[in-house]
Amino acid sequence: MKLLKDKVMAEGIVLSDQVLKVDSFLNHQMDPVLMKEVGAEFTRRFGDERITKVLTIESSGIAPAIMTSLELGVPMIFARKHKSLTLRDNILVEKVYSFTKKESNEITVSKKFLSSEDRVLIIDDFLANGEAAFGLARIVEQVGASVAGIGIVIEKSFQPGAGLLNKAGYRVESLVRIASLENGAVSFVD
Amino acid sequence: MKLLKDKVMAEGIVLSDQVLKVDSFLNHQMDPVLMKEVGAEFTRRFGDERITKVLTIESSGIAPAIMTSLELGVPMIFARKHKSLTLRDNILVEKVYSFTKKESNEITVSKKFLSSEDRVLIIDDFLANGEAAFGLARIVEQVGASVAGIGIVIEKSFQPGAGLLNKAGYRVESLVRIASLENGAVSFVD
Repeated sequence: MKLLKDKVMAEGIVLSDQVLKVDSFLNHQMDPVLMKEVGAEFTRRFGDERITKVLTIESSGIAPAIMTSLELGVPMIFARKHKSLTLRDNILVEKVYSFTKKESNEITVSKKFLSSEDRVLIIDDFLANGEAAFGLARIVEQVGASVAGIGIVIEKSFQPGAGLLNKAGYRVESLVRIASLENGAVSFVD
Repeated sequence: MKLLKDKVMAEGIVLSDQVLKVDSFLNHQMDPVLMKEVGAEFTRRFGDERITKVLTIESSGIAPAIMTSLELGVPMIFARKHKSLTLRDNILVEKVYSFTKKESNEITVSKKFLSSEDRVLIIDDFLANGEAAFGLARIVEQVGASVAGIGIVIEKSFQPGAGLLNKAGYRVESLVRIASLENGAVSFVD
């Protein structure tokens, strides 16, 4: 996705060989026009998959996911990383380890919004080790629903997540694929 | 806003005299068409205010805020409630007490996305005691920017937030105003 590549080149800050900071348009300040285009692009890629729900995880996944769900005409659900006061019973829980934060979170989704009939599109802002995406997929599968695909805004292809998800049989579509952040520079796959 | 009132009546669950659960369309599962309408309505109300930035707080504020920022044609920023690994220096911090969770969070916004020239529209999903809105307003004012208005999806008018914000001179526009949740029933102002 050219618009997104251009944005990464213009505004992305390479903090280390592993970490790309994109807080001017994706992780803190958000560019709404770009988010709308991201939603349109995911819809082009997954539009034939008879998606019934879009599932993401708070917080940076919410904007691309709501734009995608608007285009697809289906509801969006965001998994919580922290327990909610009004979301206690009847929940689906999975443990997700964050390599970046070096901590495990229990991510939760209310049972009442997923059923075995659902075909779910998982959306997230970044894909690195794949922990969050696998956690969301396990939540979908807990209720017998299908993961119709996984849409990622920025894939760090030098980390194992995309390979592991593909190997597990999931269709992963990443809008930008980063081959390396070495020497303080972003280089893309292809 | 009639669409939103209808949704609250149809799907809102009164958990207590203080707590309304709207996790089927606003706080967990989200209705993207409703969020788009919310963005359009805030734009109708604040469109003349020469807004330059929309500011909200993770997580439930993000969807209404991104839709509003898209309509207004300006960037959106979401304040974080938890410290970010890539957001450490050069940050604006305010302490916000949550009556619901009975805990204080330090909310943070990166300095580089707000300047004294900005006219900021603050958006949040709920208004109860006003702690989050006041915290966001103090962050805006720390850099000498102006709070152009505060847009709230659901105001619990029986709690003091709206009154306190008005008294402090802020223009508050709430799309739905709830007079009472007593006896397990929602009643609206007017």
